[in-house]
Amino acid sequence: MQIFVNDPDFIVEDMLKGFAATHPEIMISPLNDRVVVLKDKKEKVGVITGGGSGHEPAFLGYVGEGMLDAVAIGEVFASPPAQAFFDAMTEADNGQGVACLFGNYAGDTMNVKMAIQMAEDEDIEVKYVVATDDIASSPKETREKRHGIAGGYFMWKVGGAKAAAGGTLDEVIAVAQKVVDRTRSICVGVTPCTIPAVGKSNFLIDPGTLEFGIGHHGETGIEKKSLGSANEIAIEMTEAILTDFAFDGNRKLAVMISGLGSTMLMEQYVVCGQALETLKEKGHSVEKVYVGNFVTSLDMGGMSLTVVDLDEEITELMEAEAQAVGLKNY
Amino acid sequence: MQIFVNDPDFIVEDMLKGFAATHPEIMISPLNDRVVVLKDKKEKVGVITGGGSGHEPAFLGYVGEGMLDAVAIGEVFASPPAQAFFDAMTEADNGQGVACLFGNYAGDTMNVKMAIQMAEDEDIEVKYVVATDDIASSPKETREKRHGIAGGYFMWKVGGAKAAAGGTLDEVIAVAQKVVDRTRSICVGVTPCTIPAVGKSNFLIDPGTLEFGIGHHGETGIEKKSLGSANEIAIEMTEAILTDFAFDGNRKLAVMISGLGSTMLMEQYVVCGQALETLKEKGHSVEKVYVGNFVTSLDMGGMSLTVVDLDEEITELMEAEAQAVGLKNY
Repeated sequence: MQIFVNDPDFIVEDMLKGFAATHPEIMISPLNDRVVVLKDKKEKVGVITGGGSGHEPAFLGYVGEGMLDAVAIGEVFASPPAQAFFDAMTEADNGQGVACLFGNYAGDTMNVKMAIQMAEDEDIEVKYVVATDDIASSPKETREKRHGIAGGYFMWKVGGAKAAAGGTLDEVIAVAQKVVDRTRSICVGVTPCTIPAVGKSNFLIDPGTLEFGIGHHGETGIEKKSLGSANEIAIEMTEAILTDFAFDGNRKLAVMISGLGSTMLMEQYVVCGQALETLKEKGHSVEKVYVGNFVTSLDMGGMSLTVVDLDEEITELMEAEAQAVGLKNY
Repeated sequence: MQIFVNDPDFIVEDMLKGFAATHPEIMISPLNDRVVVLKDKKEKVGVITGGGSGHEPAFLGYVGEGMLDAVAIGEVFASPPAQAFFDAMTEADNGQGVACLFGNYAGDTMNVKMAIQMAEDEDIEVKYVVATDDIASSPKETREKRHGIAGGYFMWKVGGAKAAAGGTLDEVIAVAQKVVDRTRSICVGVTPCTIPAVGKSNFLIDPGTLEFGIGHHGETGIEKKSLGSANEIAIEMTEAILTDFAFDGNRKLAVMISGLGSTMLMEQYVVCGQALETLKEKGHSVEKVYVGNFVTSLDMGGMSLTVVDLDEEITELMEAEAQAVGLKNY
């Protein structure tokens, strides 16, 4: 492996040490060294997430004022244990309850549910929303089984902004759920990723092909296709999302291109340009665009396209002031 | 090549189209389709840069309020022509002159000097500063021959902030030069990059080795070393910079880790943690830390470490409000 690592089994620990040293507004929880928290606690509903590592800047990069208060950190591509979710809940609670906004994966869901039971015993009220934006991970009829990928960003941003604005737990949960219901993503992979502790990729993508609908851990997509032009890929991704939404008219949308790790920003802008073009041709108006590595998959080559069907409340909360490492300054 | 591209010969053009569509505050100049400008012109000294593509978010990502007004865009790893620099100067000028802050490479220097002559003919006053932060590119005795790498970020941020605060051309140039004089970088490479129009990498890095002091276009470094642990690499990079600075006492510093393209944020934080530790052990105080892909080299694996010897003016200008795509929101 041509990477920067000490002991691959401790890469998450080393990352956390560097992260905390880099960002003085954030610290590792004294309760649990796999929980990252915002130092400056506010009197408001707590907002947390958690998940496996390897998706940086997600999830820890979204801890910050106006976004997340605490994050439970798992090993690479593995759910944090229930105890870490529970400790994140404890850290984030100010007596007004905690919204746990996480991506839909079996391990995370199980551990969050256990953590919620632990929290109940301590009289901490926790409600949750699961992101299910990945349209490739389950058919539309079983949308609740879909995984959460880069679309989770909007759930955290909007939920975090609602809490910062003084929203109640039910209000935070309601708006986070609304964003989830109005968000769709599709991901394509062109080169595999390598878990540092494994040392070689656990799946392959043949040269000249792409995996359309690949998951954020290399889960098999909808279809192996030959690697077409950037514009062809962008059009297919955009159309897959529009087909899934099945809008009955023109919409105001937000669009995110998120690189998976090793895909250049240059490539991301090329694909984004065509995606915006296609959405415009279909009559939609794109109000906000995000391009960059927002939710990655280690060093995978590829990118996700996420589309959010905006309304006034979502737009306002997206635009609300927030400070977090993974946010771009625009 | 497993990348997202239409015609590789037109990847820069396609990127610019996507960039302009993504960021409505920025546009492609009507004077020259290889010049990117901030739409909202202010009455102030203009600040520009330019350089080859493939370093995104540099250089175009630093166009924004409080940073750059215009950027001349070259082909991948190739200087923009003099005409593009001149058109960027014309766009940025408001009668108060233009500061051209660019990285020290032969092609860029030649083209900037030609553009300055063209600007003189149009009564546009232009002065320039060249970033020379790459300590591996020439010995200390010939520091003026060194190349500019990620340290250019600070020159743009500080120079841009000085201009936004109403500084004169001479004041902007003076503070940009001061930052350059107080900035050092070192870069290490672990995997090569591929120019899309070439289709294969024009240099190799043997597995199990790293190129210590590699340039941002794959220029041979100081030494091929065996690939040690992240901490060993971080210590060597930090010590190389401290040796070059030869401080006579404890300093207040800013530190930047910039990934070169395909290196994970996780790795960047691991290295950063050790670099900060080493600087602290040597008695220095690190006031500001930046981690992420600030100036890249296509899809190269590797990272640069940049250290700035702060003073009050530089710190204040670094912290001044600014808006640009490549800035992180913290």
